[in-house]
Amino acid sequence: MASSEEEVTLLGVVGSPFLHRVQIALTLKRVEYKYVEDDLNNKSDLLLKYNPVYKMIPVLVHNEKPISESLVILEYIDETWKHNPILPSDPYQRALARFWAKFIDDKCVAPAWKSAFMADEKAREKATEELFEALNFLENELKEKFFGGEEINFVDIAAVFIPIIQEVAEMQLFTSEKFPKLFKWSQDFYNHPVVKENMPPKDQLFAYFKARAQSLAANKK
Amino acid sequence: MASSEEEVTLLGVVGSPFLHRVQIALTLKRVEYKYVEDDLNNKSDLLLKYNPVYKMIPVLVHNEKPISESLVILEYIDETWKHNPILPSDPYQRALARFWAKFIDDKCVAPAWKSAFMADEKAREKATEELFEALNFLENELKEKFFGGEEINFVDIAAVFIPIIQEVAEMQLFTSEKFPKLFKWSQDFYNHPVVKENMPPKDQLFAYFKARAQSLAANKK
Repeated sequence: MASSEEEVTLLGVVGSPFLHRVQIALTLKRVEYKYVEDDLNNKSDLLLKYNPVYKMIPVLVHNEKPISESLVILEYIDETWKHNPILPSDPYQRALARFWAKFIDDKCVAPAWKSAFMADEKAREKATEELFEALNFLENELKEKFFGGEEINFVDIAAVFIPIIQEVAEMQLFTSEKFPKLFKWSQDFYNHPVVKENMPPKDQLFAYFKARAQSLAANKK
Repeated sequence: MASSEEEVTLLGVVGSPFLHRVQIALTLKRVEYKYVEDDLNNKSDLLLKYNPVYKMIPVLVHNEKPISESLVILEYIDETWKHNPILPSDPYQRALARFWAKFIDDKCVAPAWKSAFMADEKAREKATEELFEALNFLENELKEKFFGGEEINFVDIAAVFIPIIQEVAEMQLFTSEKFPKLFKWSQDFYNHPVVKENMPPKDQLFAYFKARAQSLAANKK
């Protein structure tokens, strides 16, 4: 649906949940874009030029104007291409969606990462405990099929991190017993045609997470 | 400007930069509200009821509906009372404003806090270095009188943390030599009538930061 005069480019690394957030949003909006794969271990000049602050993907470049930080990009996409809205229209519902998306970034992402990949067992246990506490809040928030109701919205897209980590780490983050609603959500979300279209095969997801873990470990040395 | 049928209540603790963000926004919009002071060391039932996730101030309660997280509250205020906008109208400018406000929360708040109050000298030095790196990015972003141009906007309001910390810790975070633009911004911002109206006297700011530092230290034991 992007007009032929529009240039939309997306810089990413396949397997990154933050990239897949943006891809899901662009597909929902039927915006055509050019995808440029970056390299975590050898960042491109384009990435350094477009995101000099964080030097991180994803970066959306719309008519030469770069936008970074996946949740900021989602809001930009929603305000620029207004059909198939990602955020609710009511200000209070929008506030709740922003609150829970931020909650996922603040309270789920780091513990999920540590819970899946930390070498130290004690630290891993602590992270898992934190993660379960956070997932419990999300479980209670899930009142319908998706966080967005019958259709996926901002919060569902933000939460893509959770099933991806579960898939990659082969963990039982949420089983049907422990978090029955999140478990069903995870299946429905992964089977949503727009999400399915944007999920790489498991080996590519795995390769990304392995590279990321190695890169983080190398930086700590 | 809030109609007489509207009930706007704000839960806070005087001296909290996150509270003062919301107060500045409400004053800019000329929204009348009832302020309820909470107690960091003995949180009210109202706070626990309205923000069960983080149990933190500020919480804005609009017609019985609670909203938490200061930047989420600012967006809600801007969408609910549309006069005197806080965010720019152009989607790209909005994205930049959100990016920089998030940058302040992610990269300035914790280092500023540590830089001002950490007992360990080495940790304090490291935090100061991180803070200076972040402030350098902000210094380069400041192209006009305020981040919002001739008037204060979302980024200026988010950045209230910085002059408050400077004031309380009596630090030379930014001197006219080191960060000349931020230094001038800080003075102009503090002297803006809307900001001035919402800044408590220095002893109250100091009391808040002392209590907060003690509460954090106690939780670490």
